[in-house]
Amino acid sequence: MNAPMTKSYDMAERAMANAIRALTMDAVQAANSGHPGMPMGMADVAAVLFDRFLSIDPSDPKWPDRDRFVLSAGHGSMLLYAINHLLGYADMPVEELRRFRQLGARTAGHPEYGHAAGVEVTTGPLGQGIATAVGMALAERMANARFGDELVDHWTYVIAGDGCLMEGISHEAIDMAGHLGLGRLIVLWDDNRITIDGSTELSTSTDQMARFAASGWHTIACDAHDPAEIAAAIDAARQDPRPSLVACRSVIGFGAPNKQGGHDCHGAPLGAEEIAAARGYLEWTHEPFVIEPAVYEKWRGIARRGAEARREWESRRDSHPQRAAFKAAQARGGLDELTAAMADYKAQLLLNRPKVATRKASEMALAVVNATLPDTVGGSADLTGSNLTRTKDMRPVRRGDYGGRYLHYGIREHGMAAAMNGIALHGGFRPYGGTFLAFADYCRPSIRLSALMGVPVTYVMTHDSIGLGEDGPTHQPVEHLASLRAIPNLLVIRPADAVETAEAWEIAMASADRPVLLALSRQNLSTVRKDVTENLTARGAYPLLDPGDRQVTLIATGSEVEIALAAAELLAAQGIRAAVVSAPSFELFAQQPEDYRAATLGAAPRVGVEAAIRQGWDGMMLRTGDGFVGMTGFGASAPAPDLYRHFGITAEAVAATARNLIEE
Amino acid sequence: MNAPMTKSYDMAERAMANAIRALTMDAVQAANSGHPGMPMGMADVAAVLFDRFLSIDPSDPKWPDRDRFVLSAGHGSMLLYAINHLLGYADMPVEELRRFRQLGARTAGHPEYGHAAGVEVTTGPLGQGIATAVGMALAERMANARFGDELVDHWTYVIAGDGCLMEGISHEAIDMAGHLGLGRLIVLWDDNRITIDGSTELSTSTDQMARFAASGWHTIACDAHDPAEIAAAIDAARQDPRPSLVACRSVIGFGAPNKQGGHDCHGAPLGAEEIAAARGYLEWTHEPFVIEPAVYEKWRGIARRGAEARREWESRRDSHPQRAAFKAAQARGGLDELTAAMADYKAQLLLNRPKVATRKASEMALAVVNATLPDTVGGSADLTGSNLTRTKDMRPVRRGDYGGRYLHYGIREHGMAAAMNGIALHGGFRPYGGTFLAFADYCRPSIRLSALMGVPVTYVMTHDSIGLGEDGPTHQPVEHLASLRAIPNLLVIRPADAVETAEAWEIAMASADRPVLLALSRQNLSTVRKDVTENLTARGAYPLLDPGDRQVTLIATGSEVEIALAAAELLAAQGIRAAVVSAPSFELFAQQPEDYRAATLGAAPRVGVEAAIRQGWDGMMLRTGDGFVGMTGFGASAPAPDLYRHFGITAEAVAATARNLIEE
Repeated sequence: MNAPMTKSYDMAERAMANAIRALTMDAVQAANSGHPGMPMGMADVAAVLFDRFLSIDPSDPKWPDRDRFVLSAGHGSMLLYAINHLLGYADMPVEELRRFRQLGARTAGHPEYGHAAGVEVTTGPLGQGIATAVGMALAERMANARFGDELVDHWTYVIAGDGCLMEGISHEAIDMAGHLGLGRLIVLWDDNRITIDGSTELSTSTDQMARFAASGWHTIACDAHDPAEIAAAIDAARQDPRPSLVACRSVIGFGAPNKQGGHDCHGAPLGAEEIAAARGYLEWTHEPFVIEPAVYEKWRGIARRGAEARREWESRRDSHPQRAAFKAAQARGGLDELTAAMADYKAQLLLNRPKVATRKASEMALAVVNATLPDTVGGSADLTGSNLTRTKDMRPVRRGDYGGRYLHYGIREHGMAAAMNGIALHGGFRPYGGTFLAFADYCRPSIRLSALMGVPVTYVMTHDSIGLGEDGPTHQPVEHLASLRAIPNLLVIRPADAVETAEAWEIAMASADRPVLLALSRQNLSTVRKDVTENLTARGAYPLLDPGDRQVTLIATGSEVEIALAAAELLAAQGIRAAVVSAPSFELFAQQPEDYRAATLGAAPRVGVEAAIRQGWDGMMLRTGDGFVGMTGFGASAPAPDLYRHFGITAEAVAATARNLIEE
Repeated sequence: MNAPMTKSYDMAERAMANAIRALTMDAVQAANSGHPGMPMGMADVAAVLFDRFLSIDPSDPKWPDRDRFVLSAGHGSMLLYAINHLLGYADMPVEELRRFRQLGARTAGHPEYGHAAGVEVTTGPLGQGIATAVGMALAERMANARFGDELVDHWTYVIAGDGCLMEGISHEAIDMAGHLGLGRLIVLWDDNRITIDGSTELSTSTDQMARFAASGWHTIACDAHDPAEIAAAIDAARQDPRPSLVACRSVIGFGAPNKQGGHDCHGAPLGAEEIAAARGYLEWTHEPFVIEPAVYEKWRGIARRGAEARREWESRRDSHPQRAAFKAAQARGGLDELTAAMADYKAQLLLNRPKVATRKASEMALAVVNATLPDTVGGSADLTGSNLTRTKDMRPVRRGDYGGRYLHYGIREHGMAAAMNGIALHGGFRPYGGTFLAFADYCRPSIRLSALMGVPVTYVMTHDSIGLGEDGPTHQPVEHLASLRAIPNLLVIRPADAVETAEAWEIAMASADRPVLLALSRQNLSTVRKDVTENLTARGAYPLLDPGDRQVTLIATGSEVEIALAAAELLAAQGIRAAVVSAPSFELFAQQPEDYRAATLGAAPRVGVEAAIRQGWDGMMLRTGDGFVGMTGFGASAPAPDLYRHFGITAEAVAATARNLIEE
């Protein structure tokens, strides 16, 4: 029994595809772990896509005008690794395929951005790839609007599975892409009718073509094993001005004669016997991991075509009138100018000492940021007037008009976060976007990916405590600061006043390799800082008030810093010397030298103050026996001052806790 | 200028609706905070729904066969409070409306389950209501399949806004409801074309009717201010066997002549002047908070009708052959039987001492649970074979055949969690459902609501550490235990062996007022427990090994307990007396008496061991200076044993840490 001939069989492309299949079977078998089903099912589609359409240059994987290929169904990582090996990526020799899923190999279980060249985004958590790709395709159009076709003219292709399309984030992504008319986005759906549990009939009956069409997409279907049909479908997708869904009717595990079409080949090695059967079925006579030169040659031709396109692009760029601006955007430049502009702004703050919410202070700082850095792109998940993320003259991005700098992301926190990842990964822009801090939960999988990938996006999370008042416990973050500080490589900053907020924005804009999350108050806060000679927020924590020979140290963040200061005054009136430490960022503080940390926190008893749970304070800021004034459970619905009193987060309570510690 | 007459104006229903409008305006104004737009826009729809269709009994708010009304657009809470006041709920006198959003009032900013009668689910985080309602409508059909039309025959109605339909969770909910054919679910969409940022044209262009149709829903539109059209649409929805979307074309803030139709009336008081204008426009001449007797009378008629239906139902129930089983399911009974069955099972475990993954141990325990408790309903978000959530003879629930006990939730963690909330809120079932622990992030907003509402659902989260191996950092929980322990009122249990896993299931099944999350290993673990006379997991932490006069205490959870035991052996060989404490649940341990906690943890130096970050250990388990062996960042892709060595989570490392502490 041999693999069925399709009506427009292309020997060369079938061989290209079979190389993916063979490498996948062999690598998964060697690892005794992995997912052969998807790479084998979509190998023909991938071969046609790369052979006939994709423009990338493995010798310059970061070429800005390359097409983006996103493997949203990340468990099929061997598809990507096999392709990157065949294309000749320098970091993907066959030895890496042999070490698939082993410690230290570039061939991680799921594709990881930064871990191997040619991986555009970390995928595996389903739906993230397609939603990130929306941001990439959007960034392409935004960059095109700024720099024209000569410099920016590429496509974003996605391979997505049923899982990606069942996840909720896909709805947010699809609606957003359709609304913005992202015609450069083409999603190749691995329509294999199989999920881990079995047939898709077990769990879904959505007509995906109709669903995408309802959100303004072009849709077309093809036989995923017929190169001519595949090519015709991708051609049609490129012709249509709308984003496109190509339903690729595929057989999962295509080529494994006894397992293909079933869910058994999704996530486990095929086994030696079935691999031998597949080699017969596919008429693939080579030893494991061996590819014949003619097949390599065909794949390397794609690489040469891409290198040629990249060189032509470089010539265009070098003679382009906007080349300097283009390079600056790519390099995330302008930081010197920002430092200078912020210095003036912060000096004014010291004079004016505004009493504003830090969300308002964020808007004020953003006015400076956005006037200085042309590559910022703001937005909000439908809370623009609450997050205060849109500064003057920020024109919205709309379908067909991508020159603006503001995105109405809609009520789509998850889609927003993933799109921001995509914008940042694409390059050329510094994205920031807002929602309420409580709704960080809605976009947490994408925030985690920002951190895991180390992409510099800025989350503007306002209404950061019970201080938001009447909206009540569903909207009041209590555990969110702890849960966000728990995410490795995420920089959480909770500024106490307008100066710290400005400093936080400087840190966020300078960040090159990690995301920054700002937790901002709804309620007005006094300016507490006395000088602006150093960005003290970058220290993570610093003494705001130090009476010398302190008897107690009050450590607070954000809106509770002014409560700590008031407590220190109460204590002073009772003859007790209290230092106050403002601690806007635990992560930045943890990076300081040990002696700085010890000196800042002091040896005296400590009281932490934060309108949130204590988790995360102990070990970092507090020692056994130190005190804490904060929350122990969910909030309530009432005006903010009532809530602070009700939950005992007051200067009096802080002073009392301090006195008890001193007297112990 | 007066409110426009619609073609089928019903004076009485318009007056019923205007009562909602007036109370909303007045309460929001009194609070100087709140959302008048939605209640005023949907007042006519609500009046018709309640007047002509809804069957509830305010004198018995928990009547099992009542219709469920879910206000998914929870910011419009005054719609519900006004209705509940007008219907005569005993806990909703007009004084509560006057105290809208004030501390201690039942009229919280968003509807909170358990805070006021007649609130079926806590809403506010958008999309949760509609997704929870899917669970309710599903539970209705499942109960109907068990007990028949005589006992179970009711409807689930949802009012949802654009925000609910833009959130990703709505996709998961809609697909699930369409697939399962939940014809008793009717969603009334407040199609007002307004979001907070402005027109929906800013952010979406999805054709919602087409979208729902693509997922197998019946759809129909109506003028939201024409009672006859509304009634006809709801009638048609009830006739159709599919779940129904009724697009209610509404004017936001209907009745406020100068603000209606715009986003300004969404989330802020109308102001005295506009309220006066609205009173003229609506020809509503009463003082604030005053409702004329005839209008009360009309609303109270609904309550009387419901009370009559409830009494008739009670007669049917009392003479029903299955009345005992029905009552037992409602009461979450069977715990004595479970205790007995589990005692036998655990005794066998002590004899057999299986070496199995705790996910496998969970399946084994579930075999006992499911054989003993007929009201459990299992499921998985498409990871049945990995989560091991389906025990023998568990038949899947399918469209038209709701007698089964297993749900293929699809790749929809968020929808699953919300549906489980709905099943538990509906009553009659104990839902549990599985996914990977890393994907707790995908359903975190619903887990938080489980905890905030205090509903007893069980999350079965497997693959709970780097121990899952090759799938790599996207799939490896590192910060998840900390971030879940941070959620107030969520019980996290990470059992160490088959005995603790069985005990964890006993705790979960007995829980009446809080959700339980089980963190379970992929890798095999030895049976470490020596006796089963007491459910020691219920203690949260307990000594597993105590040499007497201990020099160090090793505290571990889950898969790291056997590492701690091995470390104790290494230490013993070096003449060091180490106690080992198994700590499956920090929350349960925190509830123990202080002396129990002190005795368990001891005075000697301590070392915590968990393949996760340290956050959450300090303060609870560890003191300043104590040691910890665990993770400090993201994981990696490799076989599990390699990862444990790579990250230094080994018996040798634990022993070395202990020795260093003792020698300090």
